[in-house]
Amino acid sequence: MPGKPSRGLADVVAASTALSDIDGQAGRLSYRGYDINQLAGSATFEEIAYLLQRGSPPSRAELDRYRAEIAAGRALGKLVTGSMAEVARSQEPMEALRTLVSLASADDPDSGSNEPAANVRKAARLTAQQPVLVAAYEAARRGRPAGEPDAQAGLAANFLLQVTGSRPSERDAQFFDTCLVLHADHTMNASTFAARVCAATLSDMHSAVVAALGTLKGPLHGGANEQVMRGLEATREAAEAEDGDPVEAAGTVTAERLQAGEKIMGFGHRVYKVEDPRASHLRQMSAEMAGASGDDTYYRMSRRMEEVVLAEKGLYPNVDFYAATVYHYLRIPTDLFTPVFSVSRMAGWTAHVIEQHADNRLIRPDSEYIGDSGLTWISLDAR
Amino acid sequence: MPGKPSRGLADVVAASTALSDIDGQAGRLSYRGYDINQLAGSATFEEIAYLLQRGSPPSRAELDRYRAEIAAGRALGKLVTGSMAEVARSQEPMEALRTLVSLASADDPDSGSNEPAANVRKAARLTAQQPVLVAAYEAARRGRPAGEPDAQAGLAANFLLQVTGSRPSERDAQFFDTCLVLHADHTMNASTFAARVCAATLSDMHSAVVAALGTLKGPLHGGANEQVMRGLEATREAAEAEDGDPVEAAGTVTAERLQAGEKIMGFGHRVYKVEDPRASHLRQMSAEMAGASGDDTYYRMSRRMEEVVLAEKGLYPNVDFYAATVYHYLRIPTDLFTPVFSVSRMAGWTAHVIEQHADNRLIRPDSEYIGDSGLTWISLDAR
Repeated sequence: MPGKPSRGLADVVAASTALSDIDGQAGRLSYRGYDINQLAGSATFEEIAYLLQRGSPPSRAELDRYRAEIAAGRALGKLVTGSMAEVARSQEPMEALRTLVSLASADDPDSGSNEPAANVRKAARLTAQQPVLVAAYEAARRGRPAGEPDAQAGLAANFLLQVTGSRPSERDAQFFDTCLVLHADHTMNASTFAARVCAATLSDMHSAVVAALGTLKGPLHGGANEQVMRGLEATREAAEAEDGDPVEAAGTVTAERLQAGEKIMGFGHRVYKVEDPRASHLRQMSAEMAGASGDDTYYRMSRRMEEVVLAEKGLYPNVDFYAATVYHYLRIPTDLFTPVFSVSRMAGWTAHVIEQHADNRLIRPDSEYIGDSGLTWISLDAR
Repeated sequence: MPGKPSRGLADVVAASTALSDIDGQAGRLSYRGYDINQLAGSATFEEIAYLLQRGSPPSRAELDRYRAEIAAGRALGKLVTGSMAEVARSQEPMEALRTLVSLASADDPDSGSNEPAANVRKAARLTAQQPVLVAAYEAARRGRPAGEPDAQAGLAANFLLQVTGSRPSERDAQFFDTCLVLHADHTMNASTFAARVCAATLSDMHSAVVAALGTLKGPLHGGANEQVMRGLEATREAAEAEDGDPVEAAGTVTAERLQAGEKIMGFGHRVYKVEDPRASHLRQMSAEMAGASGDDTYYRMSRRMEEVVLAEKGLYPNVDFYAATVYHYLRIPTDLFTPVFSVSRMAGWTAHVIEQHADNRLIRPDSEYIGDSGLTWISLDAR
């Protein structure tokens, strides 16, 4: 019998997974049993995507073959390339990605099959394709040709090359690779859950990923990193216009907003009760890049905000908070921050679809009815 | 603290709603307090869409204004019309609808706003647009122009006119209108739940509906009505090829498949323990249309299957079972049955998004981790 409603399904176990695990009390995240602290800086995104999608870390030969699949999967299909200019002209980045991945299903050679082997191949293609879609969208809306990928470079370096138009430093490529590793999966977050709800009807992987993209688009989920950056930019601009100190302003504005009962984007998490381990890595990268960039203002503003929110609310920064400045220092356009999240999370979404299909049951919860009952319908003429 | 996993969230209350209510023991379904048995044949789909989206039955003046909104919302935008030919050539119906609705967000004048008034307007536009998208897709893939709508006719009659290319009889239009009423909402079914998970990140209505369309696409959800018809067609064809009786064959094949442990599409429901009230109305319509059509074979086959499944398994037909033959007698192409479901369910999906946004909380369940723990990452060179 249905019990009391659990608003937002907080603490309700909706699925079993062997992909990732969070210990919210200890602030630990692991992928298939490997602590994220071991992986950050040590494993490449391709190794992690392989680990998630195929079950164990790849050998050198397996990784070479997977990289070859990624390289082959980069080529966008006819339907996508034919629509790119018009979509880039008309749709915001996350709307556009939702459309483009939906279009891409027609170009996938395994379209129509949910067989395990087909799903594994589609997962590699979707992972390969997502950074290229983001970069091609960026190029199309700027009216420049999308740059050619470097066959020798990995997914992270190629994305930076294609999206900014210039070759990243080795450090930037490595840091971005680490960002992708940190965002690759995160248990039953809203977009992943949407993908599983979709896949559980035995719909296909592209449909599930399209559902996930639309869900990630929401400001309470993937939209947060972009809003963090916009907040920093607005505060800095306002402070500098009055010859004020942006770092001081960041503290003051944050305190004022907290006092007004507003939520500060990039802080707190339903699962982590201590610092999100991904935030620690991102803070460290942000600090290093800020120092090297010659203008560490945004980093110092972020630190000040962090102090104020911790003191006033006891909340820690989440994955979105320092991702904002890291992406900024990597010269990624601010409105592509959520698309960048999708580049990474594609590894997790696709792995969850594979897992859902391997042991499927329709996900169909109950609802509590809170409306009127027993009303009598009066026909239009008598109404 | 997380409890035991509830596979498929069966019996877990995931949300509160005032839109629809099911009494699975009594076999009752109501929309905003009005029993479906009162509504079927008495209320038009436009009245029900209004009831769901705006809270109460429309007065004559309100309905006139809503119908005018529907008529205005029928016009497809530039991005959609420009892509139609290529999408229709490349994508299956539900893939195409997922793409086309994703494209359509750019053409919506309220794009970008989740304000209640904007959501209500978008809901009417999406409801108006969905039958036109299905008909335009059908026309495009057949290489014929999409027919003009009849300004005097309702949504149901216009859909039949546009999708078949000929004006429906009054009875057909009324029966199809009743089909749309019967499918308009159904509590927390998988596609509606996907829409709410998406909307709960404060993503937009188009994203939520795109997620719902991808979810409805799955054969365990919206795909069932099409599979029912394909099963009937295959059994009839095989029987007639051997000069056998299709009705006898339907019984025999069904019994054999049940004995082999196979699932018969169109029977049983997680919520209804007795007959789904929608199935009763659809059976009645199927019987009337079969009699009038001059060939009642599919109806009689369905009846025989129903007897066998009830006797062997104690399962009742669900909404998909007799919808198949009704749509067949309405001359709707079989691969458009699930799209037709979406034409109707758009009323419910959009109403659920309005309801979710009005009292929102992120939907983020827990998961149970069932994988390895505490593994040591060995670098690639040492692996």
